Amino acid sequence: MFLARVIGSIVSTQKVASMKGHKLLIVEPYRLDADTRASLVTTGRTFIAVDTLGSGEGDLVLVCQGSSARLTPETKTLPIDAVITGIVDSVHIEKKSVFDRTKEA
Amino acid sequence: MFLARVIGSIVSTQKVASMKGHKLLIVEPYRLDADTRASLVTTGRTFIAVDTLGSGEGDLVLVCQGSSARLTPETKTLPIDAVITGIVDSVHIEKKSVFDRTKEA
Amino acid sequence: MFLARVIGSIVSTQKVASMKGHKLLIVEPYRLDADTRASLVTTGRTFIAVDTLGSGEGDLVLVCQGSSARLTPETKTLPIDAVITGIVDSVHIEKKSVFDRTKEA
Amino acid sequence: MFLARVIGSIVSTQKVASMKGHKLLIVEPYRLDADTRASLVTTGRTFIAVDTLGSGEGDLVLVCQGSSARLTPETKTLPIDAVITGIVDSVHIEKKSVFDRTKEA
Amino acid sequence: MFLARVIGSIVSTQKVASMKGHKLLIVEPYRLDADTRASLVTTGRTFIAVDTLGSGEGDLVLVCQGSSARLTPETKTLPIDAVITGIVDSVHIEKKSVFDRTKEA
Repeated sequence: MFLARVIGSIVSTQKVASMKGHKLLIVEPYRLDADTRASLVTTGRTFIAVDTLGSGEGDLVLVCQGSSARLTPETKTLPIDAVITGIVDSVHIEKKSVFDRTKEA
Repeated sequence: MFLARVIGSIVSTQKVASMKGHKLLIVEPYRLDADTRASLVTTGRTFIAVDTLGSGEGDLVLVCQGSSARLTPETKTLPIDAVITGIVDSVHIEKKSVFDRTKEA
Repeated sequence: MFLARVIGSIVSTQKVASMKGHKLLIVEPYRLDADTRASLVTTGRTFIAVDTLGSGEGDLVLVCQGSSARLTPETKTLPIDAVITGIVDSVHIEKKSVFDRTKEA
Repeated sequence: MFLARVIGSIVSTQKVASMKGHKLLIVEPYRLDADTRASLVTTGRTFIAVDTLGSGEGDLVLVCQGSSARLTPETKTLPIDAVITGIVDSVHIEKKSVFDRTKEA
Repeated sequence: MFLARVIGSIVSTQKVASMKGHKLLIVEPYRLDADTRASLVTTGRTFIAVDTLGSGEGDLVLVCQGSSARLTPETKTLPIDAVITGIVDSVHIEKKSVFDRTKEA
């Protein structure tokens, strides 16, 4: 899995029938800053993931890829390869807090 | 999943029998422009995806990869690893519209 | 899937028993030339794919990766992650012909 | 699989129900140093993996990705794409010891 | 699949129970040299693969990734994503021999 920031959403009306009613969010994968090792930074990539948790723009989330994206009750039969499996509260790396949801603006 | 622009198509007459009759489109994955964060730009990569929605050149589409590409009614038994699952109408990132199908040329 | 040029082959006598008798070709993935957008160029990567179509060196082919590589009649139970699913006749991108098998040397 | 160093952990309270109670660790994939070929160095990437072995920060571990991450007794039905399958004691490359757990600080 | 050189091995005593007794080798993926197109060179990446063929350090091998790594008799139920499926005798690219096992030191 990877950490990602929810940065937006897409609208698609012409789609595979089973996809109707599923929220599609745009997520930007994050990684540890290689220089400071004290914060998370964007990888510059852009993915689309299904959300079933009520995630919103700005949230840091956990994203599962591949066939396992179908291992949630709402996504079992969907043609999807990425799903949000958690909204992240905090991230600690090498004893330091590098993310705390309660301190976000 | 990822966003991609349909840029072309391929023709193949010698192919695995089950692939006959399936439309193969060339798609170019897009990502958020890292500098402006106000538009989508190409990643420079080139993939082939099966289309079952009537997508055409120039369309921005949603592409699903991996075994989940077989989770649509038309692709269940195909040796494919990518399928177009939606034609995108609009994309919003950080409260800005970065794509609107009705404003495309 | 991706487009690739068949550039060679490998011989392996000590192998998993089920792999005996299957042709293993070396394929080089191709992408659209980002500058001219008028031809296909190598990505510089090197993969091995099983061939069941009689593909030969120099052919441009369609390659399927992942578990779907096992969705052809000849590859159902093989420990493989890539199979050639089509020999490409022509590729059109942005209304231009960027590959035509009949015009290859 | 790949070798990775456990560098931290995440906390997520709003998550897919089946994920409750599973430990989520942050792992940094390592590779052989291309220059010296005598030590392991970080790739600069950041992944999240489920741990069922009691791995702790600083451990070098073996990580399995994809659907096979569900092939352990504790992870069979989870929406996960990475699991720690071993805590590494030693690594030998080209006859040299490049990692020895007993010599770590 | 990809070609790789076996460069070492790892030892892990604390591991998922089903992994006990399986040999874990370190493999370095190879690709065609883009300049000369006459030899194979390392990609600089480092992976771990299960071996069931008796591969040894220095061998050039064929590696299968993903769920298909479980499609050999010895690996059916293992949490692994890479397996060695062949020891390579020779590689020919563009009519040239770029690898011959009998000529290795």
